Amino acid sequence: MDEDILENIVLLTLVTLLSALQNLFFAQKVEHEGKTHTSRSFLRQGTPAFERVYCANQNCMDAYPTFIAVLWSAGIFCSQAPAAFSGLMYLFVRQKYFVGYMGETSQSTPGYLFGKRIISFLFLMSVVGIANYFLIDYFGSDVKQYIQTLAKASSALLLIP
Amino acid sequence: MDEDILENIVLLTLVTLLSALQNLFFAQKVEHEGKTHTSRSFLRQGTPAFERVYCANQNCMDAYPTFIAVLWSAGIFCSQAPAAFSGLMYLFVRQKYFVGYMGETSQSTPGYLFGKRIISFLFLMSVVGIANYFLIDYFGSDVKQYIQTLAKASSALLLIP
Amino acid sequence: MDEDILENIVLLTLVTLLSALQNLFFAQKVEHEGKTHTSRSFLRQGTPAFERVYCANQNCMDAYPTFIAVLWSAGIFCSQAPAAFSGLMYLFVRQKYFVGYMGETSQSTPGYLFGKRIISFLFLMSVVGIANYFLIDYFGSDVKQYIQTLAKASSALLLIP
Repeated sequence: MDEDILENIVLLTLVTLLSALQNLFFAQKVEHEGKTHTSRSFLRQGTPAFERVYCANQNCMDAYPTFIAVLWSAGIFCSQAPAAFSGLMYLFVRQKYFVGYMGETSQSTPGYLFGKRIISFLFLMSVVGIANYFLIDYFGSDVKQYIQTLAKASSALLLIP
Repeated sequence: MDEDILENIVLLTLVTLLSALQNLFFAQKVEHEGKTHTSRSFLRQGTPAFERVYCANQNCMDAYPTFIAVLWSAGIFCSQAPAAFSGLMYLFVRQKYFVGYMGETSQSTPGYLFGKRIISFLFLMSVVGIANYFLIDYFGSDVKQYIQTLAKASSALLLIP
Repeated sequence: MDEDILENIVLLTLVTLLSALQNLFFAQKVEHEGKTHTSRSFLRQGTPAFERVYCANQNCMDAYPTFIAVLWSAGIFCSQAPAAFSGLMYLFVRQKYFVGYMGETSQSTPGYLFGKRIISFLFLMSVVGIANYFLIDYFGSDVKQYIQTLAKASSALLLIP
């Protein structure tokens, strides 16, 4: 593949690989919990612990394709580095969500959604990037650089808890 | 990234972003329904309404990666515009499916699959596009343009309900 | 799209399309089983057969995005042919897993994870490919060719059951 293209996707690929590793870690937890309790048809007779880890994994997996889609859109159409950084933040949030879900008593499980702020940020970056792509004839390429700088600066705001 | 490449994927990215937005909308519905009824371990004691919206979301999410895969294959190897148009149609069908699933009484839920015709069309486009790629030495590039025109024309057929 | 890029992804796209076809086959099985037994709210009153096919499909779908992510990372950053070959092997393993899951008595279902060896191999290829990308200034391009040869050779080892 062309060097120029690889340069534009290498950070995104790194984050994607890390997320794949995290997926495997989650799946491993489910596998382990399922084996420990020998729950045969788990949707009925699963232990609460197994049910919780299964749900946590399910919720993470449900949100995963959406995350990958906005991560790559933002990275390719707007700016790579802030998108990859946000992706990394999302992986931290997801880890915290998963661990939190497992450790919770059944009285209060976290909601179905998580990392809304990061997904919104990536979505916004994509929209701005694509809008800029269509309007580049009117605006010129100065605006693109301005947007990229803005994205870099505002991605740091995601660090605020 | 190279302008030439961006031009070839911008419509696909737009459809992907729209689908991500729709995913978030579905997830929001699940979150909302789950909070309203305070179902703790929903796989057992969920209300029928929650179970229905959870199932609808699950079925949509199960089909999502397949959709993205055929959308991008068709768009890159055959022709971008008809693929993006079909993707847009799929999003409409999905919305209708989701709303229909939620509104149904539990007597008759729609099936597990939906949008079969659109997925088949995108799949066919991908196969034709890849076959054409391998056979381009024999056929020449006239055939490719012919196929693209054909794809554009036949994508309009998806509008027939 | 540029011919040069298409050449570098055509095999990966082929494997992805095949996997999409397999997904549809799995979904068809779920649809069929669900209709046969007229299970309305299946998470509760589903027959054991339906529950089994639903679980098998769910487990396959949960692992699917991870598979696609490592397949494409390995194919783009390391070497296309071995990655596509491993992907093909994964599809075989998945088919065997699905059929095995359906045919099993409820006494012993297979675990949640499958195809660990292939996913690990693809993951390793991606990591080596990306490491090589960053270190290419130090190592030179000889190392890349050496790695690609090594990947081709070792992908054959996946054939050992």
